[in-house]
Amino acid sequence: MSVMDHLLDLAALPRADIPGSALQAARNSLFDWLVCGRAGQGEPLSRILQQMAQREGGIEEASVFGMGRVPARMAALANGAISHALDYDDTHFAHIGHLSVGIYPAALAVGQAKGQTLDEVAEAFLIGAEVAIRVGMVLGAGHYNRGFHQTSTAGAFGATVAAGRLYGLSRDQMRHAIGLCATKASGLKSQFGTMGKPYNAGLSASTGVESAWLASAGMTSAHDGVMGPQGFVATHADAPQPDLFWQDPAPEVFLFEDIKYKFHACCHGTHAMIEALLALRAQSGTGFEDVETLHLRTNPRWLVVCDNKAPATGLEVKFSYAWLAGMVLRGTPTSDDKTYTDALAQDAGLAEFARKVLVEGDETLTDMQAEGSLTTKAGEKLSFSHDLAARLSQEAIQHGLTQKARSVIGADADRLWQLLAQGGELHATDLAGVVAGQG
Amino acid sequence: MSVMDHLLDLAALPRADIPGSALQAARNSLFDWLVCGRAGQGEPLSRILQQMAQREGGIEEASVFGMGRVPARMAALANGAISHALDYDDTHFAHIGHLSVGIYPAALAVGQAKGQTLDEVAEAFLIGAEVAIRVGMVLGAGHYNRGFHQTSTAGAFGATVAAGRLYGLSRDQMRHAIGLCATKASGLKSQFGTMGKPYNAGLSASTGVESAWLASAGMTSAHDGVMGPQGFVATHADAPQPDLFWQDPAPEVFLFEDIKYKFHACCHGTHAMIEALLALRAQSGTGFEDVETLHLRTNPRWLVVCDNKAPATGLEVKFSYAWLAGMVLRGTPTSDDKTYTDALAQDAGLAEFARKVLVEGDETLTDMQAEGSLTTKAGEKLSFSHDLAARLSQEAIQHGLTQKARSVIGADADRLWQLLAQGGELHATDLAGVVAGQG
Repeated sequence: MSVMDHLLDLAALPRADIPGSALQAARNSLFDWLVCGRAGQGEPLSRILQQMAQREGGIEEASVFGMGRVPARMAALANGAISHALDYDDTHFAHIGHLSVGIYPAALAVGQAKGQTLDEVAEAFLIGAEVAIRVGMVLGAGHYNRGFHQTSTAGAFGATVAAGRLYGLSRDQMRHAIGLCATKASGLKSQFGTMGKPYNAGLSASTGVESAWLASAGMTSAHDGVMGPQGFVATHADAPQPDLFWQDPAPEVFLFEDIKYKFHACCHGTHAMIEALLALRAQSGTGFEDVETLHLRTNPRWLVVCDNKAPATGLEVKFSYAWLAGMVLRGTPTSDDKTYTDALAQDAGLAEFARKVLVEGDETLTDMQAEGSLTTKAGEKLSFSHDLAARLSQEAIQHGLTQKARSVIGADADRLWQLLAQGGELHATDLAGVVAGQG
Repeated sequence: MSVMDHLLDLAALPRADIPGSALQAARNSLFDWLVCGRAGQGEPLSRILQQMAQREGGIEEASVFGMGRVPARMAALANGAISHALDYDDTHFAHIGHLSVGIYPAALAVGQAKGQTLDEVAEAFLIGAEVAIRVGMVLGAGHYNRGFHQTSTAGAFGATVAAGRLYGLSRDQMRHAIGLCATKASGLKSQFGTMGKPYNAGLSASTGVESAWLASAGMTSAHDGVMGPQGFVATHADAPQPDLFWQDPAPEVFLFEDIKYKFHACCHGTHAMIEALLALRAQSGTGFEDVETLHLRTNPRWLVVCDNKAPATGLEVKFSYAWLAGMVLRGTPTSDDKTYTDALAQDAGLAEFARKVLVEGDETLTDMQAEGSLTTKAGEKLSFSHDLAARLSQEAIQHGLTQKARSVIGADADRLWQLLAQGGELHATDLAGVVAGQG
């Protein structure tokens, strides 16, 4: 069986065959994604997308964060960008990208337009996300290293499947939708550090809605847009691994359950270090002033991403091991985006601390691991390490997500968690108020 | 100076520095593009895009072929696809793609939205097309051979510049618009033979409108989306030639003037052969029944495109040297799309003739040349050849374009030529009726 056949099987997986734990993970991501969208709705980028949506107008079928309803394609574009504006959303390390921001905007927009339940939306998202992860694995690190942004490229295939499932596409229509996605999917990593990065998430989501709707209306496309000759993989990946799509692991395993949430409002590549130092501080009582030197080892791929040794802006602090290590040991909270001001980049104490930090690449560590040691002024040497790969309990996830949510959207956080807990009774349209920013 | 600096200079070129002959060429293309859009507005693909535009609704600012007005971004998407539905639009061989269908929809939509004149629209199109050609040359044949569809990829940069000029972007905004285009531009050749091919032209045009509008509203992006590290060229071309952007030829030469129109409703790779055989037939009186063997030599790149030896459908006849050679020598008109029926693919006489045709690749020929010889049953050997590169006079272009237009849109063709001849007095919005299909 070809990758495309496996993909189409997965896209049509009956609800009865979906593990409850995977659906729970999708519901956790829905909460986190809504929180990120609400938290980002006032950002300058978000205002631009809202202005575009307002100006264009049209059928009021799908909600945009911070405003009313617009056509589903536009809502998906705006919400993808808005929810990724703060870069505080979930990450999947096998996919090498952010799943919720590229796929949930498509699923929610179509779910609202078609009057479906939130459970149907979460299920379509989950299936789409699983497709995106596996397409991402086929594309592999070579795709990412060439300069493509998997959130947007592999993400678009997931958004297409999610939207296509909610539009009720036949197997043949789904194949055409995937083909249309193949010719439209795009997104470059060279946008990082600009509004182009969150825009990429919007592109993923709107490509999904557009491809799926066009296929539902009878549009045709290449027979195998993924693995076919000069299809998306052949044109965008230097060393693709098609067998990974279904062999490793078997399709009945939902890789989506390895989704990781950000509990700190900074680059995901710094989180293992932050967790390790939080634990060290809690256990040993070691503080900021006690440190003589701090030696961090991390997967080498992060060195070009988040080892900014002298951040000039609040945004750059989010990509600075040295600054963040100081913040953790000083007790500065890392979970609230508003902490990362430009003044923080000028903090003399953190600048001095940064000179004590040595960061080194270590090929033996995965990109979810951090290890290192700290020498105190008293001459004590303390080791620290953390591996983000370890799965958290549902209780720990709920605790982390609601705590983070409170720090960014206040008391609305708990109301939103309660609302989503109603599950099957809720319709996608019932979220219009939440998305609009009305609690 | 970098490619980006040259590109931004070109994008801001004052009208006084634009040669009149280049503007005339842009006006010829406007006529031809409108004819192609009108001719294609009833195609199944076109109905799907019109349905999407109708369903979404919104601000009525830009015309769609065969219907009313919708938001500019949507109009650009629909018109790009509709005008390329019949594959009868213009081609530029240095760009390796179709310029008008990927760029005029953006220029007309923004020109209408901003209440500009048709001369301003043609000028913005021309500058955009020149940018697209030169970006296409930088990307080179390696980009096309990898599987990308230059009409859509390089075309999107042209559409962005055209739309950006009409939105009145500053130099800095234009840079951001180009950066947004870099992360959005896409399009695969593996869509050829499906509705995905014309859709690619729509993607080019809508990417242009979206990127330019977002930049006008303050959106930021990568500093050098074209040649920057992991920018569009680095990620999409295996052997880029950045120096070609301005060195060969110098920027004061408008390569756009080499634009080629299709006077036959079939693959452009077959046109040199068709012109050569039309001339042979006119000069020698040799007909279909007289031929013993026909030997054609063509650039090898066309062998994988238009050497279908046994077409099964009318569409496939458009990609068949053997069938088309027989049609020309039998006197079957090649200029009307409606000629290419599925029944034509079953024509016994053409099938028999096809067995007499030998097609061979010849590296010494450019992709605009065809050469060959024909042996008659009487034993006479006649040579034929044609080179599409030779520029036609304005008179010959007008004759060819209006004749073609009459064969596809009837008497409206001459009225449209007269209307456009009014030049500067016309506003882009004055074309709403023409685009809607009302004469």
